[in-house]
Amino acid sequence: MAVYTPVSAEALADFLAGYDVGTLVSAKGIAEGVENTNYLAETTRGRFILTLYEKRVAAADLPFFMALIDHLAAKGLPVPPAIRDASGSAIGTLAGRPACLITFLPGVSVSHPTPTQAHAAGAALGRMHAALADFTPTRANSMGVESWAPLLARCGPALDQIRPGLHAEAARMLDDVLATWPAAGALPAGAIHADLFPDNVLMLGDRVAGLIDFYFACTDLRAYDLAVMHGAWAFDASGARFDAAIGRALLDGYRAAFALTPAEADHLPLLARGACLRFFLSRAWDWLNTPADALVTRKDPLAYLRRYHHYARDGGFA
Amino acid sequence: MAVYTPVSAEALADFLAGYDVGTLVSAKGIAEGVENTNYLAETTRGRFILTLYEKRVAAADLPFFMALIDHLAAKGLPVPPAIRDASGSAIGTLAGRPACLITFLPGVSVSHPTPTQAHAAGAALGRMHAALADFTPTRANSMGVESWAPLLARCGPALDQIRPGLHAEAARMLDDVLATWPAAGALPAGAIHADLFPDNVLMLGDRVAGLIDFYFACTDLRAYDLAVMHGAWAFDASGARFDAAIGRALLDGYRAAFALTPAEADHLPLLARGACLRFFLSRAWDWLNTPADALVTRKDPLAYLRRYHHYARDGGFA
Repeated sequence: MAVYTPVSAEALADFLAGYDVGTLVSAKGIAEGVENTNYLAETTRGRFILTLYEKRVAAADLPFFMALIDHLAAKGLPVPPAIRDASGSAIGTLAGRPACLITFLPGVSVSHPTPTQAHAAGAALGRMHAALADFTPTRANSMGVESWAPLLARCGPALDQIRPGLHAEAARMLDDVLATWPAAGALPAGAIHADLFPDNVLMLGDRVAGLIDFYFACTDLRAYDLAVMHGAWAFDASGARFDAAIGRALLDGYRAAFALTPAEADHLPLLARGACLRFFLSRAWDWLNTPADALVTRKDPLAYLRRYHHYARDGGFA
Repeated sequence: MAVYTPVSAEALADFLAGYDVGTLVSAKGIAEGVENTNYLAETTRGRFILTLYEKRVAAADLPFFMALIDHLAAKGLPVPPAIRDASGSAIGTLAGRPACLITFLPGVSVSHPTPTQAHAAGAALGRMHAALADFTPTRANSMGVESWAPLLARCGPALDQIRPGLHAEAARMLDDVLATWPAAGALPAGAIHADLFPDNVLMLGDRVAGLIDFYFACTDLRAYDLAVMHGAWAFDASGARFDAAIGRALLDGYRAAFALTPAEADHLPLLARGACLRFFLSRAWDWLNTPADALVTRKDPLAYLRRYHHYARDGGFA
């Protein structure tokens, strides 16, 4: 969410000279993405997002991400294609970091989606899953179900600094989720986005103009992707207020584009509780490890605890 | 240099509805400017920079800044005009902050200007001073010569945390500069930019395509503006290496566009030492008051101490 690696206009122009994209006209560091540095670069031939990958994205995973967005772009999804350099590579090096150049897409990330927008976004997820049915590369979910117990252990009793009793409460939630989590093979799996928050959907009015930020994409349960999205879209930021109309529109949109099996539908409340735990734990870890005066905004982990309790209480997918 | 105030796409679209600029297509928070929040907003009709003014820019000063850029734009300088809203005002309110909408200008800020670019930038400053000869509004320089002693006192002995003996050294430098600083009326004064670093000059090749970030603009000695620019352009970032060709090109460019009186020329080394003190002191204050792990980059105050010594040693304007 900041420019971690400043790049001079001269270095940027040199980097772009390795691509067939024209010459640099404007460059602005933009506040976007998860711990990457992003520039919006305009050339004589178009606009591009240049991303420099900082610590969280492992260079070894970039070929998976690039193959995924290329696959989706080729199938006509609104996903920005990665630009190849003169040697045919989509992954270059700039300022000592892996760097990729991606076509800029217009559109805005809405903060308060309407049901119509949620329907369109759900349908975009369904179309994405359909398009990925024949995508063969795989990547383990580094934030998947196996990671939650180790992450809870790393947070440890310090969780009680956020709220007394929180560590024990999170441990109970985790036990409950793990006790009934579907075994491998029980539900359809494939490549998923795993982070399709409203931030990562570019809208033009009621139309989805872009799906972005695939840096948590991985191979996992498809219905888990929908559950992540439901939790991210159908609540206010505090997690206290559930908007049933948004949740319903999202599901209807998904189903209109891609079939949900009865087993997937049955498991949605459980998968949603798992997704809540995943975001609760990563936010709690960041909360405990980010100085209060840092410029990165710490996101409230309790907002995902509230969502968890919503799903535990009434399923939330009625 | 960061997005201090996040604004939702919906709030941004509402704000833009008050202007005759089309509807919102894209919005990116950009890392630019001095402690303001900036968005690059694209509409169906063009591109704009939306600035939300944070603590350092006093709302009371905005009419001066807006009148200044309007004046320069009207005279054909490459300065982005401020957009009026439906009521004719250039200063609105967004997210509880004063906010202005300014036409986006292409161009990049060079990090290592060539003499040809420095000549063009010097000429742009000269043209700016010429265009401001009939600009009547005034604003005291909040970072001017009267502010340096109080700022040194506020930094106090803590300066020695940066380097032992620094407080005494800065006090001697200040005494030396104040002892011979020109009296009011001794040199031509007028509206100046006061911060025309390479960052604030947008270039397309060797051409100046934009002058931006007028938020230190004020009424002060015109030759001081040139001295600030000389210190900012003619050294490497560490302040250790002076590039005489850049310094000369900058001066030649200025003189080609606007006359420098003999008294101004004689005073340039002194004014440059004053400018070095000004940036040394503000950087030292920021250094002492910015957590080391904050995401804002702390700029090395000693880089301006080195420049000071360059000017004290040989004048630097030979």
